[in-house]
Amino acid sequence: MIKITLPDGSIKEFQKGSTPMDVAKNISEGFARNVISAEFNKKVVETSTPLTENGSLILYTFNDIEGKKAFWHSSAHVLAQAITSFYPNVKLTIGPAIDNGFYYDLDLGEDVISEKDFQDIEKKFLELARGKHEFKMREVSKADALAKYKKEKNQYKVELIENLTDGDITFCDHSDFTDLCRGGHIPNTGIIKAVKVMSVAGAYWRGDEKNNQLTRVYGISFPKQKLLTEYLELLEEAKKRDHRKLGKELELFAFSSKVGQGLPLWLPKGAALRDRLEQFLKAAQKKAGYEMVITPHIGQKELYVTSGHYEKYGEDSFQPIHTPKEGEEFLLKPMNCPHHCEIYNHKPYSYKELPKRFAEFGTVYRYEQSGELHGLTRVRGFTQDDAHIFCTPDQLDKEFKDVIDLVLYVFKSLSFDNFTAQVSLRDPNNKEKYIGSDENWEKAENAIINATKEKGLDYVVEYGEAAFYGPKLDFMVKDALGRSWQLGTIQVDYNLPERFDLNYKGSDNQLHRPVMIHRAPFGSMERFIAVLLEHTGGKFPLWLTPEQVIILPISEKYQIYAEKVLNLLENSEIRALVDDRNEKTGRKIRDAELNKIPFMIIVGEQEEENGTVSVRKQGEGDIGTLTTNEFISFIKKEINSTLEQF
Amino acid sequence: MIKITLPDGSIKEFQKGSTPMDVAKNISEGFARNVISAEFNKKVVETSTPLTENGSLILYTFNDIEGKKAFWHSSAHVLAQAITSFYPNVKLTIGPAIDNGFYYDLDLGEDVISEKDFQDIEKKFLELARGKHEFKMREVSKADALAKYKKEKNQYKVELIENLTDGDITFCDHSDFTDLCRGGHIPNTGIIKAVKVMSVAGAYWRGDEKNNQLTRVYGISFPKQKLLTEYLELLEEAKKRDHRKLGKELELFAFSSKVGQGLPLWLPKGAALRDRLEQFLKAAQKKAGYEMVITPHIGQKELYVTSGHYEKYGEDSFQPIHTPKEGEEFLLKPMNCPHHCEIYNHKPYSYKELPKRFAEFGTVYRYEQSGELHGLTRVRGFTQDDAHIFCTPDQLDKEFKDVIDLVLYVFKSLSFDNFTAQVSLRDPNNKEKYIGSDENWEKAENAIINATKEKGLDYVVEYGEAAFYGPKLDFMVKDALGRSWQLGTIQVDYNLPERFDLNYKGSDNQLHRPVMIHRAPFGSMERFIAVLLEHTGGKFPLWLTPEQVIILPISEKYQIYAEKVLNLLENSEIRALVDDRNEKTGRKIRDAELNKIPFMIIVGEQEEENGTVSVRKQGEGDIGTLTTNEFISFIKKEINSTLEQF
Repeated sequence: MIKITLPDGSIKEFQKGSTPMDVAKNISEGFARNVISAEFNKKVVETSTPLTENGSLILYTFNDIEGKKAFWHSSAHVLAQAITSFYPNVKLTIGPAIDNGFYYDLDLGEDVISEKDFQDIEKKFLELARGKHEFKMREVSKADALAKYKKEKNQYKVELIENLTDGDITFCDHSDFTDLCRGGHIPNTGIIKAVKVMSVAGAYWRGDEKNNQLTRVYGISFPKQKLLTEYLELLEEAKKRDHRKLGKELELFAFSSKVGQGLPLWLPKGAALRDRLEQFLKAAQKKAGYEMVITPHIGQKELYVTSGHYEKYGEDSFQPIHTPKEGEEFLLKPMNCPHHCEIYNHKPYSYKELPKRFAEFGTVYRYEQSGELHGLTRVRGFTQDDAHIFCTPDQLDKEFKDVIDLVLYVFKSLSFDNFTAQVSLRDPNNKEKYIGSDENWEKAENAIINATKEKGLDYVVEYGEAAFYGPKLDFMVKDALGRSWQLGTIQVDYNLPERFDLNYKGSDNQLHRPVMIHRAPFGSMERFIAVLLEHTGGKFPLWLTPEQVIILPISEKYQIYAEKVLNLLENSEIRALVDDRNEKTGRKIRDAELNKIPFMIIVGEQEEENGTVSVRKQGEGDIGTLTTNEFISFIKKEINSTLEQF
Repeated sequence: MIKITLPDGSIKEFQKGSTPMDVAKNISEGFARNVISAEFNKKVVETSTPLTENGSLILYTFNDIEGKKAFWHSSAHVLAQAITSFYPNVKLTIGPAIDNGFYYDLDLGEDVISEKDFQDIEKKFLELARGKHEFKMREVSKADALAKYKKEKNQYKVELIENLTDGDITFCDHSDFTDLCRGGHIPNTGIIKAVKVMSVAGAYWRGDEKNNQLTRVYGISFPKQKLLTEYLELLEEAKKRDHRKLGKELELFAFSSKVGQGLPLWLPKGAALRDRLEQFLKAAQKKAGYEMVITPHIGQKELYVTSGHYEKYGEDSFQPIHTPKEGEEFLLKPMNCPHHCEIYNHKPYSYKELPKRFAEFGTVYRYEQSGELHGLTRVRGFTQDDAHIFCTPDQLDKEFKDVIDLVLYVFKSLSFDNFTAQVSLRDPNNKEKYIGSDENWEKAENAIINATKEKGLDYVVEYGEAAFYGPKLDFMVKDALGRSWQLGTIQVDYNLPERFDLNYKGSDNQLHRPVMIHRAPFGSMERFIAVLLEHTGGKFPLWLTPEQVIILPISEKYQIYAEKVLNLLENSEIRALVDDRNEKTGRKIRDAELNKIPFMIIVGEQEEENGTVSVRKQGEGDIGTLTTNEFISFIKKEINSTLEQF
């Protein structure tokens, strides 16, 4: 008998040689039907692997990331099998699972796979899957493994095997198909009910452009047809919401090849949107006792040598800026913290004056390879909604809670309701690799955990994930399409106060080191706006949207009345504009809908006579006729309902 | 007889050989007493120089810049004479007039002049001046001139003379003193009634550090003792108002040797002040139809090659930023215009959509040698309140007038009441060196002149002072101490639209080039705030000042009432704070006075009981007790009276 520990801590006895699937069935037949992969003693095993010792077992379904991984990796085998049936001379290389699906890299020789072949491959794939072939692992000797692939003239597999140790080499068989494989499969091919070949692309063997170019076939598969349909719909919707597409349509930002890639130009509407977000956060920060500062976008190399950033990032960053005379060297700032430390250092402080909270919408520049750039989510210059709190160790607890409140306020005001937090702490077995005293670390870690608990956050703790200079709390938000984004970070720092020799005079009249908190609720304005665009599809909360109301005079005759209404709205601080183009009202409405302007006001003869406005809501249509004052009250209430006070 | 034309255009006949002083006396004896120098046919002459041909004569008094120049240059002669009487072996070099006074560079050998000698020198100077010695010019041969100075072993004068042509060499005699001199003196030393030796400094012969170091003695002199007294008082006041001193006292900005010289760090109060100014201008610009944009602080070198800035400034600027891979080159942006041109270029325009007015508080970086840096007035990084207007040539007229209105509004709102404008036009004899068609230049020049006239500006026209790419209008403001500062500029540009291939579709359906206007009412935030500090002595207009009210509880007991008053003020958008330090009220008042906070509210038992506040005005003292609501109405009215709507 062996003892199997399950994730809930329960321990059950099984006969030696029982498989994970036996354990699953023991739990319940219904559960077992959904189990598709397993992990035993922290190693991936097959659901059919006999267990021969005591240990911890985790059983995965398709709902788990690990389950999806096994599902998609197994699907890669079937894809390779299907492709081999069309191209018998194909040389297989590797076929891993990825975040969304899987791929297989193939050497097709002179052959080509193109989009028109996808349907045939999918058909063949499903035909093979329906055979319910079991995936079976077997150990092979290095000699036998090499013999097989040498015979097939597959230099890729030969190369892979040559780097493996005899005894560690396994093949996976299913139906008549065999592949070199480390394991981690679903029980059989029959579980795969739906597949889609997504695309083909070129890829170098081992990612090295000196090697042969292979054909990479991307696919995705699901245990139900419905899931595939939903996924493809989501993908379609994501395409529509792509922030690069929306940014263009809404005229928010643009890129210029002359200015340089990854350096966004904020067009008037985008700049107004950013300003609105900044004013929103500024107002909340003011209430929370932050003080705005402004620092330059460059600093002497010396500044970053002091901060340690130069040693860490210098070579991979934008290179130093030299002066024509005097031999000085400056760097574009990759972070605002060194500048804020120098602001802290401009005068001495007593403990009574702490905490100091210096905030700045600070634009920083970090080099990224052009291939890595992507719209506003991966850029070379971006503006952090940065702040640094300098406090005593005893103040950390309260400061941390206050920062969480601010972050939650930001998320709520921007309709991100679905988020989790990750607490990153020291590796408890490796304490010597962190800077700062044990006592301070404990204080900080407890402060974070207490604050996280007290605020009722849904969180996970990751040991060993802290930076060497302090523990941190990261927020992951889910957008409307269920995609996760890392937004908002709070980070404790014991390192920079040391490096910049920051201090304050304590009640004991001695000098002490303050603790520093780095925090950015948005993260960066660029990335946040990108996520917000994809989350909302460009339909921003009413308080934020650049134009809240568009006034559409039905002809030139009502231009003056339209301007009058505009004035009234503007005096009530409602953002409005008049569409005075010589276009049909229908066209004006369509354009307003496309521009996602929340309210349209149509004015013609009747409205002018009665001092009223006809109101349409974006995406909803006509909502009736009101007097201008009624409309103002109505929309003010609507705006206020979307933005609570901090 | 010769014909003499006077500046008012009148022509009078005089006997050949008459002197400028004869002409002055002919105008009036009273006027002649004030005349101290003259210019004949655009050449400086002595007032005693016989005029032998027809020509234009300008007579100067001490009130004219040219008059001061002659006065101070003549004073340099007397200074040299006075110094020679103490140091007979001194070797004289040059002694020019400068903006405020004059200096003389001397080789004193082993001798030293220090502050303790100033009074003796001044005494001797005045004794010599009282002799009413006439300044008399005489021509000498090169040989004679060289002989004199070779005998005196004065290698400096020898070097000067060797570079002169025989026939062009003149000496100036007064009393027993002779100096090599080109001329331009006052009639006699007796006019100089007051002198002050200001300082001594080292200076290299001909400004070249490879040459001998000389002693430079700075002085200033006046025709009346009273003028000297006033000048010294002004100097004292200017020292008190030095923005570097005030910036420190008011905690507005700081510099850090680690961040780098010339790169200001804006401390919380300074950043709030800047923000206030920016919001003020933003509000006015919004009404004037500007749209804010945001662009990065770097651009590819290519961008500045296109704009022409690289060719012009590249070598003297911050050097290119290289990337670690991909071999790209970026530059810190020295100007925002290329970025704004790229924003304009992101889509096509019809003439109906113009003008486009893109505004940005854009931070630019320009290398200055460290010796040139000075507080906030000469920095290496500064934020321009920049905007670029893209319009049709026909719109130029109106746009120019609107920009002038905006500039005047800015000046008025910030208590700069004393300013003049300079219109810089083409050199009419050299039209080929300017870019753009004759027709467009005429349009633009007329637009500027018409607008300037129509707005009733006090202006001068300077021909040939236009940039090669367009005419411009600059504003010079006088501060409270009577010093002039160049603030605010409006510049027409035909060049960048060409270089960036900007266009719009005209009513003729053809593509046309827009005209561009560059404008910055503040100029730069840094320089403007420096000037504003020196102009106001740190006592900002009420609407602008970072803290409008400080609440001083007379003891801890009234802390809660103080906070209650604070809340009421903040809800009415009045910027206030509580001085909750455990200090005596007298001390709190003194500190508030020092911090230039316009209103102090003192709260104690009586105030709490009655719901009132005791109000003090900065610099004026107690102004009575009011209910809190009365005070709010009162201060709101005060604030509004300092800031009109645009």
